[in-house]
Amino acid sequence: MKFLDIRDADFDQQFAAILGRGEEAGREVEQVVLEIIAAVRKQGDAAVLEYTNRFDRMDAASVTSLQVTDEEIDYAFARAKDEEIAALKLAVERVARFHEKQKQETWLSTEETDIMLGQMVTPLQRVGIYVPGGKASYPSSVIMNAVPAKVAGVPEVIMVAPTPGGEINHHVLIAARLSGVDRIFRIGGAQAVAALAYGTDAIPRVDKVTGPGNIYVATAKKLVFGQVGIDMIAGPSEILVINDGSGTPAHIAADLLSQAEHDELASSILITTDRGFGEQVAGEVEKQLKKLSRREIARESWETYGAVIVAGSLDEAIAFSNRIAPEHLELAVGDPFAILPKIRNAGAIFMGHFTPEAAGDYLAGPNHTLPTGGTARFFSPLSVDDFIKKSSIVYFSETGLNRLGRDIVRIAELEGLEAHGKSVSIRLK
Amino acid sequence: MKFLDIRDADFDQQFAAILGRGEEAGREVEQVVLEIIAAVRKQGDAAVLEYTNRFDRMDAASVTSLQVTDEEIDYAFARAKDEEIAALKLAVERVARFHEKQKQETWLSTEETDIMLGQMVTPLQRVGIYVPGGKASYPSSVIMNAVPAKVAGVPEVIMVAPTPGGEINHHVLIAARLSGVDRIFRIGGAQAVAALAYGTDAIPRVDKVTGPGNIYVATAKKLVFGQVGIDMIAGPSEILVINDGSGTPAHIAADLLSQAEHDELASSILITTDRGFGEQVAGEVEKQLKKLSRREIARESWETYGAVIVAGSLDEAIAFSNRIAPEHLELAVGDPFAILPKIRNAGAIFMGHFTPEAAGDYLAGPNHTLPTGGTARFFSPLSVDDFIKKSSIVYFSETGLNRLGRDIVRIAELEGLEAHGKSVSIRLK
Repeated sequence: MKFLDIRDADFDQQFAAILGRGEEAGREVEQVVLEIIAAVRKQGDAAVLEYTNRFDRMDAASVTSLQVTDEEIDYAFARAKDEEIAALKLAVERVARFHEKQKQETWLSTEETDIMLGQMVTPLQRVGIYVPGGKASYPSSVIMNAVPAKVAGVPEVIMVAPTPGGEINHHVLIAARLSGVDRIFRIGGAQAVAALAYGTDAIPRVDKVTGPGNIYVATAKKLVFGQVGIDMIAGPSEILVINDGSGTPAHIAADLLSQAEHDELASSILITTDRGFGEQVAGEVEKQLKKLSRREIARESWETYGAVIVAGSLDEAIAFSNRIAPEHLELAVGDPFAILPKIRNAGAIFMGHFTPEAAGDYLAGPNHTLPTGGTARFFSPLSVDDFIKKSSIVYFSETGLNRLGRDIVRIAELEGLEAHGKSVSIRLK
Repeated sequence: MKFLDIRDADFDQQFAAILGRGEEAGREVEQVVLEIIAAVRKQGDAAVLEYTNRFDRMDAASVTSLQVTDEEIDYAFARAKDEEIAALKLAVERVARFHEKQKQETWLSTEETDIMLGQMVTPLQRVGIYVPGGKASYPSSVIMNAVPAKVAGVPEVIMVAPTPGGEINHHVLIAARLSGVDRIFRIGGAQAVAALAYGTDAIPRVDKVTGPGNIYVATAKKLVFGQVGIDMIAGPSEILVINDGSGTPAHIAADLLSQAEHDELASSILITTDRGFGEQVAGEVEKQLKKLSRREIARESWETYGAVIVAGSLDEAIAFSNRIAPEHLELAVGDPFAILPKIRNAGAIFMGHFTPEAAGDYLAGPNHTLPTGGTARFFSPLSVDDFIKKSSIVYFSETGLNRLGRDIVRIAELEGLEAHGKSVSIRLK
């Protein structure tokens, strides 16, 4: 962990190591993924089956047999505790209620009597959601990807999840059914992304692939982008806490550790105007770290990418935050709403002393899929917007075309596109 | 041109040649572009200057000297005809008015008394718009990229345009000033995209790069995606006209040709329920083609990628349209609004017999940057949405956290993320 002062001459240099932590796919990863995609495009299910059996140590006879059955999901429900199912149900309901508010309507403007213009909103017809396998297989990821798609009105949501050694996470299956997922396949990796992007006999081609994954999955998504839509390209997770000396150091320390336990590349940063408070938080982190089950991961993350930064003023802290555009931003200050309008770049903003980031991870309502690594400068949280697309509507009456026709022809002419002009002038009186 | 019947057994096979026309960047192009990006990242302005002088046959002493001056723009205005400036002004005004309707508001939900959730909308802080040089340098492209950015509230819009041999298009400069572009640099190609994505001393780093370009520009945009945002990946242009036998064959022919004159890879397709009407349109295309100034381009496009297709019913034509997801879709039918809700995938929809696609290209209001090559399945027209991003807002009061805390902890536990749970339980009463 670095204890820094933003006013130090070498601050930028000191801080640079924390910023540059993103994993970039080397050319070798790209080469492997390109080969997998090419094989899936050429051989379809045969390639998907072979990669799945090899990489996930499976022994499946066909891709069709890799589809999860209703009975398997029933079994998962039967095995789970009632209160677990209830908690996941609550999450689905609250996430759905929040995302309902993101829905946009088709509109048509009639402010001119001879021309109508509008924008039609339609859902994507079929989407694929990727859910990682093994230890990083989280039911909350299923909810955060599937619910916005269903709220958007996507008729068919196909989920893929690798099941290394055949093992499947029951809570993931429960979350899938509660979220309205239509079909689930036990496949993963670049082969699953390729199958969704191009379609095979068993796996239908989708319009968009969303969801987190390892470097092979992320690279595959990037490479099929354009053939299908993808959501943002996610890197390791991060949190920035802005503090003004108010609040409880132990609470902030717990928030920093909730991020650090994700993985060794996670980054947890506190920026405070109160040096003493910062020192107390640092001490609390050490104390709480010792008792965590995932303390080894959390410690490595905290030691390598953790920081406590002292700022001269709240405005200085905010400017810093806007510069790094954090994925998660906690405004752990006395009056968080007073500084909200100064925040320019952040994935999600957690307001005040009783909104730990973890509240937003599961069931507050907003999506937990957020832009990382400074990309909140231009990416947004995953939302209903990701599962719809728009079409412009243009209607000219004969009067309307006669009113604007000359100017259309004029621009067509100055662009040297004669046929464009003629398609208008041929209709004019 | 192919004259097909959708009910023929070999229709799909016949039509496949038209669908697969997209230019895909070979590995060689990618290699060249990767080198250019690496050089710009490493050497900054020196690399931008060298590539610009070499590729665009320039003799500039510095990148700073490549910024277009106010005097140059004044000169462009002085040289242009009044009616040209008026037409461009009208386009800017109408495009701005349409895009104003796309603006989204920040919202905060107060339906729970102890928890508030919301979504904050903020503009990107700085964007780069790419405008091709030479013959494909169109003022309308400037308007369609810069106006939505300015309507979104982007404080700084940087335009780049290569000026091969030093030549600059005056109407492009006029459109830039009218649209509110802040700075213009005479640079282009992959080097311009790289400079915008990473920043150099002279060229500021932007949050997003939009705008059309050749295969090097498109490849560069794809490769820097994630470092910055980009708009859609555009391929060659296309139009599909759905017809029910109503209307005037010469008008439809003119519309098909307005698309064909763009470039040899453009595709113009008519699908009609009336074979005789289709034959008349085909004859009209031949007649009109002879008189066009860009007849060589238009003829090659029409012969290679043009088609007239006979459908058994309007529903069959619509199903075909939804399958290919055209960039431009004309509903040249008697009652276009009656079939609008059946359209699932299209970039822009032109309604009825007096709405030639060219009307939408310049000044109807909607954007002319549209998804091509079937990507209207998941991409939308360029819009204000491209120049804003969202941040989730989460506020829990102490009461709110106590109300939902147990369920949050339960999900954290079943995901095995203990520190997530602790950051909540430490705050509970």
